[in-house]
Amino acid sequence: MTAEPGSEIERLIQLLARLPGLGPRSARRAALHLIKKREPLMVPLASAITDALDKVCECSVCGNVDTVDPCAICRDPKREGGLLIVVEDVADLWALERAGAHKARYHVLGGVLSALDGVGPDDLRIAALVERAADPAVSEIVIAVNATVEGQTTAHYITDALAGTNVDVSRLAHGVPVGGELDYLDEGTLTQAIRARTPF
Amino acid sequence: MTAEPGSEIERLIQLLARLPGLGPRSARRAALHLIKKREPLMVPLASAITDALDKVCECSVCGNVDTVDPCAICRDPKREGGLLIVVEDVADLWALERAGAHKARYHVLGGVLSALDGVGPDDLRIAALVERAADPAVSEIVIAVNATVEGQTTAHYITDALAGTNVDVSRLAHGVPVGGELDYLDEGTLTQAIRARTPF
Repeated sequence: MTAEPGSEIERLIQLLARLPGLGPRSARRAALHLIKKREPLMVPLASAITDALDKVCECSVCGNVDTVDPCAICRDPKREGGLLIVVEDVADLWALERAGAHKARYHVLGGVLSALDGVGPDDLRIAALVERAADPAVSEIVIAVNATVEGQTTAHYITDALAGTNVDVSRLAHGVPVGGELDYLDEGTLTQAIRARTPF
Repeated sequence: MTAEPGSEIERLIQLLARLPGLGPRSARRAALHLIKKREPLMVPLASAITDALDKVCECSVCGNVDTVDPCAICRDPKREGGLLIVVEDVADLWALERAGAHKARYHVLGGVLSALDGVGPDDLRIAALVERAADPAVSEIVIAVNATVEGQTTAHYITDALAGTNVDVSRLAHGVPVGGELDYLDEGTLTQAIRARTPF
């Protein structure tokens, strides 16, 4: 096609279009924006990607991504060592860190069990979790997977897998989101919120 | 902030967030996606950006971006040499090329006149257009700017600037978009569509 002359531009557009959140149209806009903002954006982005390629690695302990292995969270001596929070994905770990919810350590599964997508227990970091749970220093594991069918299936599988260890296994509370309006919530959430009501 | 550990990852996210169509949240997702798809996506994207940095330049004749100067369209001997299509932006040129609307040559203004944004005639490639219009080979100029207030102001300014030359100046037709439903169109478009009605 002659629409984007120059195979270098076409190739850039095709690769940008594979980023989540960008389609073919927005990839074209992004590529043009890069070409126009050559010095302030395109040059720094090229070096940022190259730097990240050089330095970013997966933490061999928890599965987080960082520039050091073990990652900064696993190395942090101020973290509560007895509590592990199990998440599906690094994005969920980041979300919990941004919330500053709890200064614990994490365990990233790398996905959820899904028969449809062919993801079995061996594709997730479940064996590594059971191994970490066997450490006497670990006393509690919070399963913080998404409240989806696959997430809950995975949570049950993990609970079973941890049955032989001495850790307490808990999960995130269900209920009304802070700032949420009852009128917009689904029945399942409202039912859980009433069942798990807390004294004023 | 400790949410995205490793300054390389944070920097990558900040730069990705400056692409049009990506906000802070989708930039985080895009960065994680890159880190996960290291070989199939991140490595090729790094080299695609570096290649584009090396090779992509602005066409000194029409303002298009390409890997050669003059660009492939300006070099193409099959293009109708007498007709120039004036567009605001390279994205508009690409849109017309995708449509295959007309095998003409282009002139990219690089924006529109805007008092609010402080864009004056000298910031656009208007003088270069007048110069190209003085070439006896050019017989017609189609002003294909967007149908916005700034676009139309720019069109009037260009028409005035071209008054001293011998070219015919025309503009895109207004009317009902192909596939469009009358019920969803604004009054201005409908009025123009009736005024410019064509015999069956």
